[in-house]
Amino acid sequence: MNFYPQPISRLIEEFSKLPGVGPKTAQRLAFYVLNMDMSEAEKLSSAIINAKNNIKYCSVCGNLTDDDPCIICRNTSRDSNLICVVEEPKDVIAMEKTREYKGLYHVLHGVISPLGGVGPDDIRIKELLGRITPDIKEIIIATNPNVEGEATAMYIARLIKPLGVKVTRIAHGIPVGADLEYADEVTLSKALEGRREI
Amino acid sequence: MNFYPQPISRLIEEFSKLPGVGPKTAQRLAFYVLNMDMSEAEKLSSAIINAKNNIKYCSVCGNLTDDDPCIICRNTSRDSNLICVVEEPKDVIAMEKTREYKGLYHVLHGVISPLGGVGPDDIRIKELLGRITPDIKEIIIATNPNVEGEATAMYIARLIKPLGVKVTRIAHGIPVGADLEYADEVTLSKALEGRREI
Repeated sequence: MNFYPQPISRLIEEFSKLPGVGPKTAQRLAFYVLNMDMSEAEKLSSAIINAKNNIKYCSVCGNLTDDDPCIICRNTSRDSNLICVVEEPKDVIAMEKTREYKGLYHVLHGVISPLGGVGPDDIRIKELLGRITPDIKEIIIATNPNVEGEATAMYIARLIKPLGVKVTRIAHGIPVGADLEYADEVTLSKALEGRREI
Repeated sequence: MNFYPQPISRLIEEFSKLPGVGPKTAQRLAFYVLNMDMSEAEKLSSAIINAKNNIKYCSVCGNLTDDDPCIICRNTSRDSNLICVVEEPKDVIAMEKTREYKGLYHVLHGVISPLGGVGPDDIRIKELLGRITPDIKEIIIATNPNVEGEATAMYIARLIKPLGVKVTRIAHGIPVGADLEYADEVTLSKALEGRREI
Protein backbone atom coordinates (compact mmCIF):
# COMPACT_ATOMS: atom_id res chain seq x y z
CA MET A 1 0.00 0.00 0.00
CA ASN A 2 1.20 3.42 -0.92
CA PHE A 3 0.52 6.22 1.54
CA TYR A 4 1.54 9.08 -0.75
CA PRO A 5 -0.34 10.81 -3.55
CA GLN A 6 1.05 9.61 -6.89
CA PRO A 7 3.14 12.72 -7.80
CA ILE A 8 4.94 12.50 -4.44
CA SER A 9 5.60 8.77 -4.65
CA ARG A 10 6.90 9.24 -8.21
CA LEU A 11 9.29 11.96 -7.02
CA ILE A 12 10.46 9.81 -4.09
CA GLU A 13 11.03 6.92 -6.50
CA GLU A 14 13.10 9.09 -8.85
CA PHE A 15 15.20 10.51 -6.03
CA SER A 16 15.86 7.05 -4.59
CA LYS A 17 17.48 6.01 -7.89
CA LEU A 18 20.34 8.45 -7.16
CA PRO A 19 23.51 7.02 -5.61
CA GLY A 20 23.60 7.08 -1.81
CA VAL A 21 19.93 8.06 -1.56
CA GLY A 22 17.83 5.55 0.39
CA PRO A 23 14.06 5.63 0.88
CA LYS A 24 14.21 7.93 3.94
CA THR A 25 16.53 10.44 2.26
CA ALA A 26 14.43 10.35 -0.90
CA GLN A 27 11.35 11.15 1.18
CA ARG A 28 13.16 14.03 2.87
CA LEU A 29 14.33 15.42 -0.49
CA ALA A 30 10.81 15.13 -1.92
CA PHE A 31 9.25 17.02 0.99
CA TYR A 32 11.98 19.62 0.67
CA VAL A 33 11.19 20.09 -3.02
CA LEU A 34 7.48 20.43 -2.23
CA ASN A 35 8.32 23.27 0.15
CA MET A 36 10.59 25.04 -2.35
CA ASP A 37 9.49 28.06 -4.34
CA MET A 38 8.27 27.06 -7.79
CA SER A 39 11.12 29.06 -9.34
CA GLU A 40 13.70 27.15 -7.29
CA ALA A 41 12.16 23.81 -8.28
CA GLU A 42 12.23 24.88 -11.92
CA LYS A 43 15.91 25.77 -11.62
CA LEU A 44 16.72 22.31 -10.24
CA SER A 45 14.59 20.59 -12.87
CA SER A 46 16.02 22.57 -15.79
CA ALA A 47 19.62 22.26 -14.56
CA ILE A 48 19.28 18.48 -14.93
CA ILE A 49 18.02 18.66 -18.52
CA ASN A 50 20.37 21.51 -19.43
CA ALA A 51 23.42 19.56 -18.22
CA LYS A 52 22.31 16.45 -20.11
CA ASN A 53 21.70 18.44 -23.29
CA ASN A 54 24.81 20.60 -23.28
CA ILE A 55 27.53 18.43 -21.83
CA LYS A 56 29.38 16.17 -24.22
CA TYR A 57 32.81 14.57 -24.35
CA CYS A 58 35.69 16.55 -25.82
CA SER A 59 36.62 14.86 -29.12
CA VAL A 60 40.31 15.30 -28.32
CA CYS A 61 40.80 14.41 -24.65
CA GLY A 62 37.46 12.83 -23.72
CA ASN A 63 36.80 15.21 -20.83
CA LEU A 64 33.29 16.52 -20.12
CA THR A 65 32.73 19.86 -21.80
CA ASP A 66 30.06 22.16 -23.19
CA ASP A 67 32.35 23.19 -26.09
CA ASP A 68 34.34 20.99 -28.43
CA PRO A 69 37.36 20.90 -28.14
CA CYS A 70 37.26 21.56 -24.41
CA ILE A 71 38.64 24.64 -22.71
CA ILE A 72 41.84 22.81 -21.70
CA CYS A 73 42.59 21.44 -25.19
CA ARG A 74 41.91 24.91 -26.69
CA ASN A 75 44.18 26.71 -24.23
CA THR A 76 47.29 27.61 -26.24
CA SER A 77 49.22 28.65 -23.13
CA ARG A 78 49.25 25.02 -21.93
CA ASP A 79 52.05 22.62 -22.82
CA SER A 80 50.61 20.52 -25.66
CA ASN A 81 53.61 18.17 -25.58
CA LEU A 82 52.64 16.74 -22.22
CA ILE A 83 49.63 14.42 -21.77
CA CYS A 84 48.32 13.21 -18.44
CA VAL A 85 46.25 10.01 -18.72
CA VAL A 86 43.41 9.66 -16.17
CA GLU A 87 40.50 7.28 -15.67
CA GLU A 88 37.54 9.61 -15.34
CA PRO A 89 36.56 13.27 -15.93
CA LYS A 90 36.53 13.87 -12.18
CA ASP A 91 40.23 12.97 -12.07
CA VAL A 92 40.86 15.91 -14.41
CA ILE A 93 39.19 18.18 -11.84
CA ALA A 94 41.35 16.68 -9.08
CA MET A 95 44.52 17.34 -11.10
CA GLU A 96 43.43 20.86 -12.05
CA LYS A 97 42.84 21.70 -8.41
CA THR A 98 46.55 21.22 -7.72
CA ARG A 99 47.22 24.17 -10.11
CA GLU A 100 50.59 22.50 -10.76
CA TYR A 101 49.97 20.73 -14.02
CA LYS A 102 50.03 22.76 -17.23
CA GLY A 103 49.88 20.04 -19.88
CA LEU A 104 46.89 18.38 -21.56
CA TYR A 105 44.80 15.39 -20.49
CA HIS A 106 43.52 12.15 -21.87
CA VAL A 107 40.46 10.58 -20.20
CA LEU A 108 40.26 6.80 -20.62
CA HIS A 109 36.67 6.45 -19.35
CA GLY A 110 37.49 3.32 -17.42
CA VAL A 111 40.31 0.89 -16.70
CA ILE A 112 41.19 -2.51 -18.08
CA SER A 113 39.38 -5.01 -15.89
CA PRO A 114 39.23 -8.64 -17.07
CA LEU A 115 36.83 -9.50 -14.22
CA GLY A 116 34.54 -6.61 -15.14
CA GLY A 117 34.69 -7.58 -18.82
CA VAL A 118 36.51 -4.37 -19.79
CA GLY A 119 39.27 -4.93 -22.34
CA PRO A 120 41.80 -2.47 -23.83
CA ASP A 121 39.42 -1.77 -26.74
CA ASP A 122 36.63 -0.70 -24.39
CA ILE A 123 38.52 2.30 -23.05
CA ARG A 124 40.05 5.20 -24.99
CA ILE A 125 43.54 3.73 -25.52
CA LYS A 126 43.34 3.78 -29.34
CA GLU A 127 42.49 7.50 -29.18
CA LEU A 128 45.53 8.06 -26.94
CA LEU A 129 47.84 6.37 -29.45
CA GLY A 130 46.32 8.57 -32.14
CA ARG A 131 47.44 11.67 -30.22
CA ILE A 132 51.09 10.65 -30.06
CA THR A 133 53.11 12.76 -32.48
CA PRO A 134 56.89 13.29 -32.58
CA ASP A 135 56.32 16.51 -30.61
CA ILE A 136 55.01 14.69 -27.53
CA LYS A 137 57.66 14.78 -24.82
CA GLU A 138 56.03 12.79 -22.02
CA ILE A 139 52.96 10.77 -21.13
CA ILE A 140 52.14 10.85 -17.41
CA ILE A 141 49.92 7.96 -16.35
CA ALA A 142 47.71 8.97 -13.43
CA THR A 143 45.31 6.03 -13.19
CA ASN A 144 44.31 5.07 -9.64
CA PRO A 145 46.88 3.15 -7.57
CA ASN A 146 44.89 -0.11 -7.39
CA VAL A 147 45.25 -3.42 -9.23
CA GLU A 148 43.26 -2.36 -12.28
CA GLY A 149 44.79 1.09 -12.45
CA GLU A 150 48.30 -0.40 -12.27
CA ALA A 151 47.53 -3.01 -14.91
CA THR A 152 46.15 -0.33 -17.22
CA ALA A 153 49.23 1.84 -16.61
CA MET A 154 51.56 -1.08 -17.47
CA TYR A 155 49.56 -1.92 -20.59
CA ILE A 156 49.66 1.65 -21.89
CA ALA A 157 53.37 2.02 -21.04
CA ARG A 158 54.21 -1.11 -22.99
CA LEU A 159 52.34 0.21 -26.05
CA ILE A 160 53.84 3.70 -25.97
CA LYS A 161 57.47 3.13 -24.97
CA PRO A 162 58.38 1.49 -28.31
CA LEU A 163 57.29 4.74 -29.99
CA GLY A 164 60.20 6.45 -28.25
CA VAL A 165 58.07 8.57 -25.92
CA LYS A 166 58.90 8.98 -22.24
CA VAL A 167 56.20 7.39 -20.08
CA THR A 168 55.98 8.20 -16.35
CA ARG A 169 53.73 7.10 -13.50
CA ILE A 170 52.63 9.38 -10.64
CA ALA A 171 54.43 8.61 -7.38
CA HIS A 172 53.04 6.26 -4.76
CA GLY A 173 53.90 7.06 -1.18
CA ILE A 174 52.75 8.38 2.15
CA PRO A 175 50.01 11.02 1.77
CA VAL A 176 50.95 14.45 3.11
CA GLY A 177 49.74 14.83 6.69
CA ALA A 178 49.43 11.06 7.24
CA ASP A 179 51.04 9.05 10.00
CA LEU A 180 53.83 6.57 9.21
CA GLU A 181 52.47 4.34 11.96
CA TYR A 182 49.18 3.85 10.16
CA ALA A 183 50.47 3.52 6.60
CA ASP A 184 50.00 0.04 5.09
CA GLU A 185 53.13 -1.93 4.21
CA VAL A 186 52.64 -1.73 0.44
CA THR A 187 52.37 2.07 0.52
CA LEU A 188 55.35 2.31 2.86
CA SER A 189 57.56 0.09 0.71
CA LYS A 190 56.51 2.11 -2.37
CA ALA A 191 57.45 5.28 -0.48
CA LEU A 192 60.84 3.80 0.37
CA GLU A 193 61.39 2.63 -3.18
CA GLY A 194 60.56 6.09 -4.53
CA ARG A 195 62.83 7.96 -2.11
CA ARG A 196 64.73 11.01 -3.36
CA GLU A 197 67.80 12.86 -2.26
CA ILE A 198 67.10 16.05 -0.32
CA MET B 1 38.25 29.53 -10.22
CA ASN B 2 35.66 27.10 -11.45
CA PHE B 3 36.94 23.85 -12.93
CA TYR B 4 33.64 22.68 -14.38
CA PRO B 5 31.85 23.67 -17.59
CA GLN B 6 28.95 25.97 -16.70
CA PRO B 7 26.05 23.45 -17.10
CA ILE B 8 27.81 21.04 -14.69
CA SER B 9 28.62 23.68 -12.10
CA ARG B 10 25.02 24.91 -12.29
CA LEU B 11 23.73 21.37 -11.69
CA ILE B 12 26.16 20.88 -8.77
CA GLU B 13 25.01 24.18 -7.30
CA GLU B 14 21.33 23.20 -7.55
CA PHE B 15 21.94 19.79 -5.98
CA SER B 16 23.93 21.31 -3.13
CA LYS B 17 20.87 23.38 -2.12
CA LEU B 18 19.10 20.15 -1.10
CA PRO B 19 19.17 19.21 2.60
CA GLY B 20 22.05 16.95 3.62
CA VAL B 21 23.80 17.38 0.27
CA GLY B 22 27.29 18.88 0.59
CA PRO B 23 29.60 19.87 -2.27
CA LYS B 24 31.10 16.36 -2.66
CA THR B 25 27.71 14.64 -2.74
CA ALA B 26 26.37 17.27 -5.14
CA GLN B 27 29.31 16.57 -7.45
CA ARG B 28 28.67 12.83 -7.25
CA LEU B 29 24.97 13.30 -8.02
CA ALA B 30 25.78 15.59 -10.95
CA PHE B 31 28.20 13.07 -12.49
CA TYR B 32 25.62 10.35 -11.95
CA VAL B 33 22.99 12.40 -13.78
CA LEU B 34 25.43 13.01 -16.66
CA ASN B 35 25.85 9.25 -17.00
CA MET B 36 22.10 8.58 -16.90
CA ASP B 37 20.08 7.85 -20.02
CA MET B 38 18.38 10.98 -21.30
CA SER B 39 14.97 9.38 -20.64
CA GLU B 40 15.89 8.73 -17.00
CA ALA B 41 17.10 12.29 -16.54
CA GLU B 42 13.87 13.56 -18.06
CA LYS B 43 11.86 11.42 -15.64
CA LEU B 44 13.72 12.92 -12.66
CA SER B 45 13.41 16.45 -14.02
CA SER B 46 9.71 16.15 -14.79
CA ALA B 47 8.89 14.40 -11.49
CA ILE B 48 10.10 17.53 -9.69
CA ILE B 49 7.92 19.90 -11.73
CA ASN B 50 4.99 17.48 -11.75
CA ALA B 51 5.02 17.17 -7.96
CA LYS B 52 5.24 20.94 -7.54
CA ASN B 53 2.38 21.50 -10.00
CA ASN B 54 0.00 18.83 -8.78
CA ILE B 55 0.49 18.65 -5.03
CA LYS B 56 -1.48 21.07 -2.91
CA TYR B 57 -2.80 21.15 0.63
CA CYS B 58 -6.17 19.54 1.38
CA SER B 59 -8.58 22.38 2.19
CA VAL B 60 -10.06 20.31 5.03
CA CYS B 61 -7.18 18.67 6.88
CA GLY B 62 -4.14 20.44 5.43
CA ASN B 63 -2.42 17.24 4.31
CA LEU B 64 -0.51 17.09 1.00
CA THR B 65 -2.71 15.80 -1.78
CA ASP B 66 -3.22 15.80 -5.54
CA ASP B 67 -7.02 15.94 -5.10
CA ASP B 68 -9.07 18.25 -2.89
CA PRO B 69 -10.37 17.11 -0.40
CA CYS B 70 -7.69 14.48 0.11
CA ILE B 71 -8.26 10.73 -0.12
CA ILE B 72 -8.46 10.42 3.68
CA CYS B 73 -11.05 13.19 4.12
CA ARG B 74 -13.12 11.72 1.24
CA ASN B 75 -13.07 8.18 2.61
CA THR B 76 -16.56 7.59 4.02
CA SER B 77 -15.52 4.36 5.73
CA ARG B 78 -13.32 6.32 8.14
CA ASP B 79 -14.60 7.65 11.45
CA SER B 80 -15.27 11.33 10.78
CA ASN B 81 -15.95 12.00 14.46
CA LEU B 82 -12.34 11.45 15.42
CA ILE B 83 -9.58 13.93 14.52
CA CYS B 84 -5.88 13.36 15.08
CA VAL B 85 -3.86 16.59 15.20
CA VAL B 86 -0.29 16.35 13.85
CA GLU B 87 2.49 18.83 13.09
CA GLU B 88 3.44 17.94 9.53
CA PRO B 89 2.18 15.94 6.53
CA LYS B 90 4.88 13.31 7.13
CA ASP B 91 3.37 12.64 10.54
CA VAL B 92 0.16 11.60 8.76
CA ILE B 93 2.21 9.03 6.83
CA ALA B 94 3.76 7.77 10.08
CA MET B 95 0.30 7.36 11.65
CA GLU B 96 -1.13 5.69 8.55
CA LYS B 97 1.68 3.16 8.55
CA THR B 98 0.44 1.82 11.91
CA ARG B 99 -2.80 0.80 10.12
CA GLU B 100 -4.49 1.23 13.51
CA TYR B 101 -6.02 4.66 13.20
CA LYS B 102 -9.27 5.01 11.25
CA GLY B 103 -10.25 8.61 12.00
CA LEU B 104 -9.40 11.84 10.18
CA TYR B 105 -6.39 14.16 10.54
CA HIS B 106 -5.62 17.80 11.03
CA VAL B 107 -2.18 19.02 9.98
CA LEU B 108 -1.04 22.14 11.87
CA HIS B 109 1.95 22.89 9.61
CA GLY B 110 4.17 23.80 12.55
CA VAL B 111 4.09 24.20 16.31
CA ILE B 112 3.81 27.20 18.56
CA SER B 113 7.35 28.41 19.16
CA PRO B 114 7.82 31.82 20.78
CA LEU B 115 11.58 31.65 20.16
CA GLY B 116 11.04 30.83 16.49
CA GLY B 117 8.47 33.63 16.19
CA VAL B 118 5.61 31.19 15.52
CA GLY B 119 2.41 32.11 17.34
CA PRO B 120 -0.95 30.32 17.53
CA ASP B 121 -2.21 32.28 14.52
CA ASP B 122 0.68 31.10 12.34
CA ILE B 123 -0.37 27.44 12.45
CA ARG B 124 -3.71 25.92 11.48
CA ILE B 125 -5.43 26.10 14.90
CA LYS B 126 -8.29 28.32 13.69
CA GLU B 127 -9.06 25.79 10.96
CA LEU B 128 -9.12 23.03 13.60
CA LEU B 129 -11.65 24.93 15.70
CA GLY B 130 -13.75 25.40 12.57
CA ARG B 131 -13.96 21.61 12.17
CA ILE B 132 -15.37 21.01 15.64
CA THR B 133 -19.05 20.17 15.40
CA PRO B 134 -21.32 18.55 18.01
CA ASP B 135 -20.66 15.20 16.22
CA ILE B 136 -16.93 15.21 17.05
CA LYS B 137 -16.26 12.65 19.77
CA GLU B 138 -12.55 13.05 20.35
CA ILE B 139 -9.51 15.10 19.36
CA ILE B 140 -6.23 13.17 19.65
CA ILE B 141 -3.21 15.46 19.85
CA ALA B 142 -0.16 13.79 18.31
CA THR B 143 2.34 16.64 18.18
CA ASN B 144 5.94 15.64 18.87
CA PRO B 145 6.90 14.95 22.51
CA ASN B 146 9.23 17.92 22.88
CA VAL B 147 8.83 21.31 24.57
CA GLU B 148 7.14 23.00 21.63
CA GLY B 149 4.95 20.01 20.79
CA GLU B 150 3.79 19.78 24.42
CA ALA B 151 3.10 23.51 24.63
CA THR B 152 1.08 23.38 21.42
CA ALA B 153 -0.85 20.36 22.73
CA MET B 154 -1.68 22.20 25.98
CA TYR B 155 -2.72 25.32 24.09
CA ILE B 156 -5.07 23.39 21.81
CA ALA B 157 -6.49 21.34 24.69
CA ARG B 158 -7.30 24.49 26.63
CA LEU B 159 -9.17 25.93 23.63
CA ILE B 160 -11.15 22.82 22.81
CA LYS B 161 -12.09 21.39 26.22
CA PRO B 162 -14.55 24.22 27.01
CA LEU B 163 -16.45 23.17 23.86
CA GLY B 164 -17.23 19.88 25.61
CA VAL B 165 -15.06 17.75 23.32
CA LYS B 166 -12.83 15.01 24.72
CA VAL B 167 -9.16 15.85 24.08
CA THR B 168 -6.48 13.17 24.41
CA ARG B 169 -2.69 13.10 24.04
CA ILE B 170 -0.74 10.15 22.62
CA ALA B 171 1.10 8.16 25.31
CA HIS B 172 4.70 8.85 26.26
CA GLY B 173 6.74 5.88 27.41
CA ILE B 174 9.45 3.37 26.63
CA PRO B 175 9.62 2.59 22.89
CA VAL B 176 8.92 -1.03 21.98
CA GLY B 177 12.19 -2.97 21.77
CA ALA B 178 14.12 -0.40 23.81
CA ASP B 179 16.13 -1.07 26.93
CA LEU B 180 14.96 0.26 30.31
CA GLU B 181 18.59 0.78 31.24
CA TYR B 182 19.10 3.33 28.49
CA ALA B 183 15.80 5.19 28.79
CA ASP B 184 16.13 8.78 30.03
CA GLU B 185 14.51 9.66 33.35
CA VAL B 186 11.78 11.86 31.88
CA THR B 187 10.61 9.12 29.52
CA LEU B 188 10.78 6.54 32.30
CA SER B 189 8.78 8.66 34.72
CA LYS B 190 6.20 9.31 31.97
CA ALA B 191 6.03 5.55 31.36
CA LEU B 192 5.45 4.96 35.08
CA GLU B 193 2.84 7.69 35.26
CA GLY B 194 0.99 6.20 32.28
CA ARG B 195 1.02 2.61 33.63
CA ARG B 196 -2.01 0.42 33.00
CA GLU B 197 -3.45 -2.67 34.63
CA ILE B 198 -2.75 -5.89 32.76
